Amino acid sequence: MAEFDLIARIRQRAASRGDVVLGIGDDCALLAPLPGQLLAVTMDTLNAGVHFPPETAPADIGWKALAVNLSDLAAMGAEPAWCTLSLTLPHADAAFVDGFCDGFLALAAQHGVALVGGDTTRGPLSVSITAHGFVAAGEALRRDGARVGDEVWVSGTLGDAAGALRQWQAGAPMAPVLQARLDRPTPRVALGRALRGIASSAIDISDGLLADLAHVCRASGVGAEIDVDALPASDALRAAFDADVRRTLQATGGDDYELCFTAPIAQRAALEALSRALALPLARVGRVVPGTGVACAALPQGTVGYQHFA
Amino acid sequence: MAEFDLIARIRQRAASRGDVVLGIGDDCALLAPLPGQLLAVTMDTLNAGVHFPPETAPADIGWKALAVNLSDLAAMGAEPAWCTLSLTLPHADAAFVDGFCDGFLALAAQHGVALVGGDTTRGPLSVSITAHGFVAAGEALRRDGARVGDEVWVSGTLGDAAGALRQWQAGAPMAPVLQARLDRPTPRVALGRALRGIASSAIDISDGLLADLAHVCRASGVGAEIDVDALPASDALRAAFDADVRRTLQATGGDDYELCFTAPIAQRAALEALSRALALPLARVGRVVPGTGVACAALPQGTVGYQHFA
Repeated sequence: MAEFDLIARIRQRAASRGDVVLGIGDDCALLAPLPGQLLAVTMDTLNAGVHFPPETAPADIGWKALAVNLSDLAAMGAEPAWCTLSLTLPHADAAFVDGFCDGFLALAAQHGVALVGGDTTRGPLSVSITAHGFVAAGEALRRDGARVGDEVWVSGTLGDAAGALRQWQAGAPMAPVLQARLDRPTPRVALGRALRGIASSAIDISDGLLADLAHVCRASGVGAEIDVDALPASDALRAAFDADVRRTLQATGGDDYELCFTAPIAQRAALEALSRALALPLARVGRVVPGTGVACAALPQGTVGYQHFA
Repeated sequence: MAEFDLIARIRQRAASRGDVVLGIGDDCALLAPLPGQLLAVTMDTLNAGVHFPPETAPADIGWKALAVNLSDLAAMGAEPAWCTLSLTLPHADAAFVDGFCDGFLALAAQHGVALVGGDTTRGPLSVSITAHGFVAAGEALRRDGARVGDEVWVSGTLGDAAGALRQWQAGAPMAPVLQARLDRPTPRVALGRALRGIASSAIDISDGLLADLAHVCRASGVGAEIDVDALPASDALRAAFDADVRRTLQATGGDDYELCFTAPIAQRAALEALSRALALPLARVGRVVPGTGVACAALPQGTVGYQHFA
């Protein structure tokens, strides 16, 4: 099977959209941006053995590679539209590509995202995706908008993906609920969209709450205090780890792809209503304070999230 | 050195543009598309040992990774604007990143391209770039516009990069002129822009003239005949290889990133004037004929260009 057969295999399954003038198959895709909107663009790469265990199912790799990109659009408050995919494979493996497409295209369909182009190359297993979305100027959820007095919120539950990873690293079976969070994260696209005009800043939690919130603090010129006992935990995480390990996973575990955002106190009622409307828990976990950095009394000083190369 | 230090190192050197509302450093870049224009998007990945020899200078890798993407924009007739970069490195290597940026940013500056975001990850050396440009609807140079009776043209000289690669594979020193073509290809951006309204179709030569022209033929529902003796050769290629090897390199060698395009006979004078204006040789090398496939009498039947996985 040659490169062009792989591309044809992906192409015949990819859905399109009305704003795709020319999709897969030319030197470039030609796309019609939504007039009056900004284009939000993000690019993330997942490498086998670094971002997912090598034995991860191809469908899960496909899902996750798109999910982490849609999560960045969500954290910006952007509406997903298009993506490009670069798939690097050790050898042309039709079964892998079919499985990959199962997960990738299922998530793309959920969010109306069209795959419009990309590349297939030979090399160690790696997936790069660039995702594009729209957001009106002035409505984007940036990292630099947190203000002293705002409250810090997170969606869903924290630490689940890191819990699964810890079990895997220990050679133990992964709890199914935790593994599902690691393999098939849910990008909080509807939440991001709904937070426009409510949140003062947002970021998705890919490297751990403390590390990611620290980016918001740095960009906004503020500090933050986190109440570790307020961090939401799933029943599965509570069942799998004692309280000390669990707290560390919640505060520093990456890969959950929940949103962390700040909002004025006056938005509490709006956020509680939003939580009900989306059937998604939203928890108040701290506050924005003067100063720098993120304080979290119950954890050892210097505790941070995941850094590549660190 | 951690991931964020690498990103900071790149960020502080990256130039911006007036249409970049938010560049490197948030969950997404925020970009203002040019009103009334289509967005042209392309994504290409280069892997060490597959797309370039592992010992290639970092500056050359940076240059080439951007060049192959700008070449796709050129082949579409698009005006380059923005790019995102995903850099995968075995370890956080500041000297590599500095060298990479030297080449990458030098080419970006030549074309007014802003680096607006991306990713840095750990893994085997690999570079993915997504490039964005603008082109008016109806002016894009697509692969499906070749018509029977059109002539086939190519820019520059062919086979140089493949000649360098052949020398390297044979363990011989690469001729400097040929090596420069392999390591630092020139994306034909100005030519692509000028071909709007003149060329009926275009493609960049990344996998070899015969293979790439075959894509045009397939998309356009036509065939093509190539006169191998009309293919342009550099003096360096003539000096390095005998005529038979040289012809094969010219017809099938990839990595030159010249443009192959078709145009009606009536455009001959315009193309000759354009060649003079750009100081870039443009050679008529064949014609579009009824049927399918690319015929090239002087080469063995079935000769094609480079295919990954093949």
